[in-house]
Amino acid sequence: MRDFSVDHSALALNTATLGHNVEGAGAGWSPERTIDACASRGITGIVFWRREIGLRAHQIGQSVRAAGMSVVGLCRTPFLVGPLAPKGRQAVMDDFCASIDMAAALGAPVLTIVVGGVEPGTKGPRDSLALVADRVAEAAPYAAARGVKLALEPLNPVYGGNRSCLMTVRDAVDLCQQIDAPNLGIAVDVYHTWWDTSLGAELLRAGPERIFGFHLCDWLAETRDMLVDRGMMGDGVADLRAIRRDVEAAGYAGPCEVEVFSAETWWRRDPGEVLDVMMDRFRTCC
Amino acid sequence: MRDFSVDHSALALNTATLGHNVEGAGAGWSPERTIDACASRGITGIVFWRREIGLRAHQIGQSVRAAGMSVVGLCRTPFLVGPLAPKGRQAVMDDFCASIDMAAALGAPVLTIVVGGVEPGTKGPRDSLALVADRVAEAAPYAAARGVKLALEPLNPVYGGNRSCLMTVRDAVDLCQQIDAPNLGIAVDVYHTWWDTSLGAELLRAGPERIFGFHLCDWLAETRDMLVDRGMMGDGVADLRAIRRDVEAAGYAGPCEVEVFSAETWWRRDPGEVLDVMMDRFRTCC
Repeated sequence: MRDFSVDHSALALNTATLGHNVEGAGAGWSPERTIDACASRGITGIVFWRREIGLRAHQIGQSVRAAGMSVVGLCRTPFLVGPLAPKGRQAVMDDFCASIDMAAALGAPVLTIVVGGVEPGTKGPRDSLALVADRVAEAAPYAAARGVKLALEPLNPVYGGNRSCLMTVRDAVDLCQQIDAPNLGIAVDVYHTWWDTSLGAELLRAGPERIFGFHLCDWLAETRDMLVDRGMMGDGVADLRAIRRDVEAAGYAGPCEVEVFSAETWWRRDPGEVLDVMMDRFRTCC
Repeated sequence: MRDFSVDHSALALNTATLGHNVEGAGAGWSPERTIDACASRGITGIVFWRREIGLRAHQIGQSVRAAGMSVVGLCRTPFLVGPLAPKGRQAVMDDFCASIDMAAALGAPVLTIVVGGVEPGTKGPRDSLALVADRVAEAAPYAAARGVKLALEPLNPVYGGNRSCLMTVRDAVDLCQQIDAPNLGIAVDVYHTWWDTSLGAELLRAGPERIFGFHLCDWLAETRDMLVDRGMMGDGVADLRAIRRDVEAAGYAGPCEVEVFSAETWWRRDPGEVLDVMMDRFRTCC
């Protein structure tokens, strides 16, 4: 297992941690300011969200590399199914391809897929997962041709209704095996998987060629909000070391991105301070 | 599979559905009034919560039976571990035994166990589950001597931090097999398990002798509150028929209790109307 206390080269910032999606706080930071703040601290990886990129994907990617850093990934595809997806299959596929194009232009090797919730008119996850399989299978070659890997991210079951009918690593690995595209894998997020006692076994089933990302934060014992009350590493009850041990035992040796949605705590603090705390926690708690 | 459209004898009311724990609404209904309202509608099963019973367990049980009904269960043990459990092992066991005594006095054949969250000072579910196993193993013979079955209820992973380190039927079946007490089984609640694509296989692993209860409500696509925004059957995205098919395929033929925590919708309505809607939905959506 890698020793992060002496080497934080695997650390990547997911810009959500700086509160990109609230007024104030990190909302005032441009991609360039975030890049500078990371580079000055020796953080070498960064993950952006589409909303931050606009039409400047190529330029922002160049800025990252000019600073000696790497774009580690892009969040994310549109919801592919469910009540929050674009209306109609063609609209979904068009935006799916647009997100792939942006990842390619940015130089992001991995695009995260959040699949969306239960398709209206259906019940339970199965029918929706079948639609997801169909849509991902169609987009995978398009992404492969542009050098982009697609990472299916299962979300915590609390998001099953409207955000993700894909709720376990088990189901994500099943989807990968079913679709069988060389550039399709999974992203493992401790927020979404910390509860799963079968995680280690499922990651071994995935294997190193299917694990495209590992996301860090923590699950607060007294979670107050379903969306934006994640904890910084060390503040919650997830066994971060045990999870990383499982992820690395399955062969993953890539970046570990910190993604903390926290409207009332971390998004209220100065983004520079948040970066400093994040680095410290990465060294001591992960 | 049983046909509930023509026979609702399996229907049981969990009194939480009437809003026992909010001011106003069903909070004004005594156990006797609830019994009368159920009996007049032909609802034959009822599940109480400890807070409603006080020192009148024997008397309330007699009232239920005098109305031609059955007490189907009692909610619930104290949290056995985690931040909300009584402080110290002895305090936990004392209250655990008190809840067993109440179930026996009430004539409730099943007592639900909600195990509690991650034990302070530990990380992840495993250490806490080991403590749960120890405490349940000690209490099981005490319950057996009083004719009470203990039903481990896995909760949705959203409750993992402070309410239940037991989050999957898989882990609940494992606990049953590990403890191996004849009066220990599981309760299956659609709110907590609707997302689990391995549910059918895990219920088969449990087998009919380990399934002690089946709880109905629905998962709303746009869930607004983690605790008290459950849907009435038919209003959400859970595949209730498919889940019941799995439960019955595993050999369960017992009561199906309706347990809807709904502060903003059902708890604001007249409890009599809620019972009427519940019966209708039981016949048409379950």
